[in-house]
Amino acid sequence: MGVTDRLGRGAATGDRTDGDAGMRGGARRVRFDTDPGRYRHWRLAIEPPIAILLLDVDQDGGFEPGYALKLNSYDLGVDIELADAVQRLRFEHPEVRAVVLGSARDGVFSAGANIRMLAAADHPFKVNFCKFTNETRLAMEDASARSGQVWVAALNGTASGGGYELALACDHILLADDGSSSVSLPEVPLLGVLPGTGGLTRVIDKRHVRRDRADVVCTVAEGVRGRRALDWGLVDELAPRTAILDAARRRAEALAAASDRPQGPRPGAAGAAGVPLPKLDRDEREDRVDYGHVRVDLDRGRSVATITVRGPAGDQPTDAAAALRAGAAWWPLAAARQLDDAILHLRFNELALGTWVLRTEGDPAAVAAADEVLLANLDGDWFVREVALLLKRTLKRLDLSSRSLVALVEPGSCFAGTLLELLLAADRGFMLSGGFDGDDTPPATVRLTGMNLGPLPAANGLSRLAGRFLGHDGELAAARARLGDPLAADEAEALGLVTHVYDDVDWEDEVRLALEERASLSPDALTGLEANLRFGGPETLETKIFGRLSAWQNWVFQRPNAAGDAGALRRFGTGVRPSYDPRRV
Amino acid sequence: MGVTDRLGRGAATGDRTDGDAGMRGGARRVRFDTDPGRYRHWRLAIEPPIAILLLDVDQDGGFEPGYALKLNSYDLGVDIELADAVQRLRFEHPEVRAVVLGSARDGVFSAGANIRMLAAADHPFKVNFCKFTNETRLAMEDASARSGQVWVAALNGTASGGGYELALACDHILLADDGSSSVSLPEVPLLGVLPGTGGLTRVIDKRHVRRDRADVVCTVAEGVRGRRALDWGLVDELAPRTAILDAARRRAEALAAASDRPQGPRPGAAGAAGVPLPKLDRDEREDRVDYGHVRVDLDRGRSVATITVRGPAGDQPTDAAAALRAGAAWWPLAAARQLDDAILHLRFNELALGTWVLRTEGDPAAVAAADEVLLANLDGDWFVREVALLLKRTLKRLDLSSRSLVALVEPGSCFAGTLLELLLAADRGFMLSGGFDGDDTPPATVRLTGMNLGPLPAANGLSRLAGRFLGHDGELAAARARLGDPLAADEAEALGLVTHVYDDVDWEDEVRLALEERASLSPDALTGLEANLRFGGPETLETKIFGRLSAWQNWVFQRPNAAGDAGALRRFGTGVRPSYDPRRV
Repeated sequence: MGVTDRLGRGAATGDRTDGDAGMRGGARRVRFDTDPGRYRHWRLAIEPPIAILLLDVDQDGGFEPGYALKLNSYDLGVDIELADAVQRLRFEHPEVRAVVLGSARDGVFSAGANIRMLAAADHPFKVNFCKFTNETRLAMEDASARSGQVWVAALNGTASGGGYELALACDHILLADDGSSSVSLPEVPLLGVLPGTGGLTRVIDKRHVRRDRADVVCTVAEGVRGRRALDWGLVDELAPRTAILDAARRRAEALAAASDRPQGPRPGAAGAAGVPLPKLDRDEREDRVDYGHVRVDLDRGRSVATITVRGPAGDQPTDAAAALRAGAAWWPLAAARQLDDAILHLRFNELALGTWVLRTEGDPAAVAAADEVLLANLDGDWFVREVALLLKRTLKRLDLSSRSLVALVEPGSCFAGTLLELLLAADRGFMLSGGFDGDDTPPATVRLTGMNLGPLPAANGLSRLAGRFLGHDGELAAARARLGDPLAADEAEALGLVTHVYDDVDWEDEVRLALEERASLSPDALTGLEANLRFGGPETLETKIFGRLSAWQNWVFQRPNAAGDAGALRRFGTGVRPSYDPRRV
Repeated sequence: MGVTDRLGRGAATGDRTDGDAGMRGGARRVRFDTDPGRYRHWRLAIEPPIAILLLDVDQDGGFEPGYALKLNSYDLGVDIELADAVQRLRFEHPEVRAVVLGSARDGVFSAGANIRMLAAADHPFKVNFCKFTNETRLAMEDASARSGQVWVAALNGTASGGGYELALACDHILLADDGSSSVSLPEVPLLGVLPGTGGLTRVIDKRHVRRDRADVVCTVAEGVRGRRALDWGLVDELAPRTAILDAARRRAEALAAASDRPQGPRPGAAGAAGVPLPKLDRDEREDRVDYGHVRVDLDRGRSVATITVRGPAGDQPTDAAAALRAGAAWWPLAAARQLDDAILHLRFNELALGTWVLRTEGDPAAVAAADEVLLANLDGDWFVREVALLLKRTLKRLDLSSRSLVALVEPGSCFAGTLLELLLAADRGFMLSGGFDGDDTPPATVRLTGMNLGPLPAANGLSRLAGRFLGHDGELAAARARLGDPLAADEAEALGLVTHVYDDVDWEDEVRLALEERASLSPDALTGLEANLRFGGPETLETKIFGRLSAWQNWVFQRPNAAGDAGALRRFGTGVRPSYDPRRV
């Protein structure tokens, strides 16, 4: 089976409506597990206080067969390894305070996303691929900004398209000054699409390149070299090609000196020990995936996936030292990793499950107690901070998953603090008033903790609570005034924390009707609707990347000028020029 | 010929590549001229200090044949009249300080954009239609915010989709409290598309409706009525249906009392006289349109339209009173109206001219002198303020036209102040150093005036100069320090005001090559690229509407779930349910 079939292209739309064909038909499911011992495309060396991560793509190691990953070009498999490296550096290597991102290939940094892979991929795969790669680059910037682990790019050769975008996610970019190495964004001139990994936004809003110069950069396939790249602000430093890794190392060491991460184990010095991230346990069946703290139930008949997060059970750490001893088994970290994997699994492998029902099970007080440990150590402890940052990124992934989110608050649930964010992330929240008939489980409550007031901001930089009450400061203050209180359904409704409250008589019918109604609506229109309603208020680099750049890219990806038989993406490399409908809209 | 053919749908893409078929093939060109005496769909009554504008759509008066404008639904022709009314109220009626927007149809406000028209229209027409209607609604908000002419919506019956979005552009919304009148955004449930006129953005970011409630509003076709609409912030006031126009009138009179517009002619009181806006003179030929101050040359072979704006000539007003006496003939107003019409003409009628070359001809000192009159009276004179606001809106239209903009600064040009904005709006600016061989016209200069420092902000709220130097305060200050100075090419380049400087030897070739290169790139990719590069920095309601909502809408419009044969837009009203590809992306 060739790449075309495996990536789902060419199948008639009708073949996919069972939610089981397309990407999944014949192709292996996308898995996000890996570890440095299994990397095929990266070399990671830990040299405290820095790490060296070199791109060394195995051109025969494509995620799907049918294309060669030449010139350090990447596909999803390469990026899954990068995401793993970014994550492990944060948790397993507190002693690393700066990371040099370079290339192991002489005179080539990276040619960006592999074009043959993109040309063969269907639209959903392209969108999911871009979304994931964007999240990985934002995770690098999050590490630079919040974890004291600054990224430095060493461009020892040409960095084009996604290759330069990868560098743009770093804090500092060095470019080889050899008369040939360049940075470029050739997507528009060569492929008829847009740079898909934040390049346009970062050139303008992060690096503040003058817009007419950015226009030149983005329309000239060969890009910009040397002194001009420096003068225009496309890179931060030039270095001789043969010495560029050394120059990057020196720069990284200087940046490491300003980091607030724990001191690392230098020869003769004591340092913080890292937290190893073991492979996730995943019990997967036809209609269910169970990770332990997170269970996903798949209802293909109703197009619904139900994600249930279980709260902490049994004795739990009550301080940072105990949390560190628990390591990857500490509930907030374990639950975040499981939820993150579940989200990615559903995004890539269960495209037709359009609604995700969000549930929780457990003791709200236990969640609140875990939040106490988080809140008390956010500023003082590197590990607790990392766990909170991972929770933040995982919840952002949820916001960006292009699925309708419905939270159900029922007896036995634990929507408190960190887990209350699931309710606040939902498009609609349903809460049962009282108990179920014949069941003596006490009525559900919801509870705010300090974790709802800032440490877990959405992409717009606001807490989900503040975003909910945008322009209504009084309502925000009223909700905050009930911090820590268990709130019954009527109180939660009065405070504006849930959308719908029903009692046992109506609950089942109302929830069923709401899910059926959702499943009857246009999947595309819902994606656009939710993207507009979820991110009110301030805009950030992140909301621009996902809310503006991605929306335009999705549009361009659909157009015959890119994806049609005579379009640029399909004709790239054939020697035949694309044929364009010239009408501008 | 049916509507399908007239709106260009169904023609093979190849048929359009000569830039002359499609929309223009057989269909009449879109014209934006009208006046109240010719309105077919609106009734305008001036009752100082208020005006009453009632929607009364002639269902047989569609812009194209083939559909009936039932239930006060609108098409482009209806909106052209609305745009005309908004403009004339500002210029011709300084005595009007508040406008009541209502319906002349009993129990119906407006059903929004006509679905049959949308279903039959091709993609470029839909995009242009939505863009124009959005600009009209933003012009209403601009009048409320800047002209002391506040808009009040009186919803005497159901306002659905674009009908409610029209109300959302008003400052105050009254809804009939009769148990049946509702506000709704049924695009997602009924049509599989998004509200296309800012509805999602305004519900969230202007009216601050809680996002889960907004989700309910946007997924329930029947919308929200009475008390709930008020409680949720969807409307501002309820009134009995039969008395709603009176209630709106009272509200408008109260708002008028707070306005800073000149006092109007009440019985026995003196008031400001308005400035009538006569029909534009347009000398139109096959390859040229000449308005007097603005000339457009059409080069279909190169896919280029050249827009030349001529500066003021002869004696010009030097104070506000003289400007008012000159009225519509005052150069800044006349040039703005002509440029505005030229932009709309090219947008709708010349889709395949992908690059607009921006030129000026005249005396820079004369432009600077006109700017002096503008700057001295921006705060104190209603007419001058209106002219500046129109210049602002016209330049915003230019930014949003989805065309590549290239400015050419040559001897004899007058890129000063207000006209320098054309250079600052361009994606690339070329400037000739020195003169043309054998021509003794002095070398070109460019010149900043106070008009470049704030009165003409782009959609992001920044002056184009500040947007150009985003994050580079020193460069902004250096440019500002040369306010009023004629700047030769080398100085303009050093200050960062132009992209490329060439002398006579290279000029022609370099410009030709740049235009040829532009014409060779994907029109869609250029639109997406420019949309991302032109609007850096802060986001506003306006940038969200155009940069985020519109981008998503364009995407949805392309998708088979909306526009395919089995899509919702095509199947609406047929009794057959749409068939969706359920995959979420």
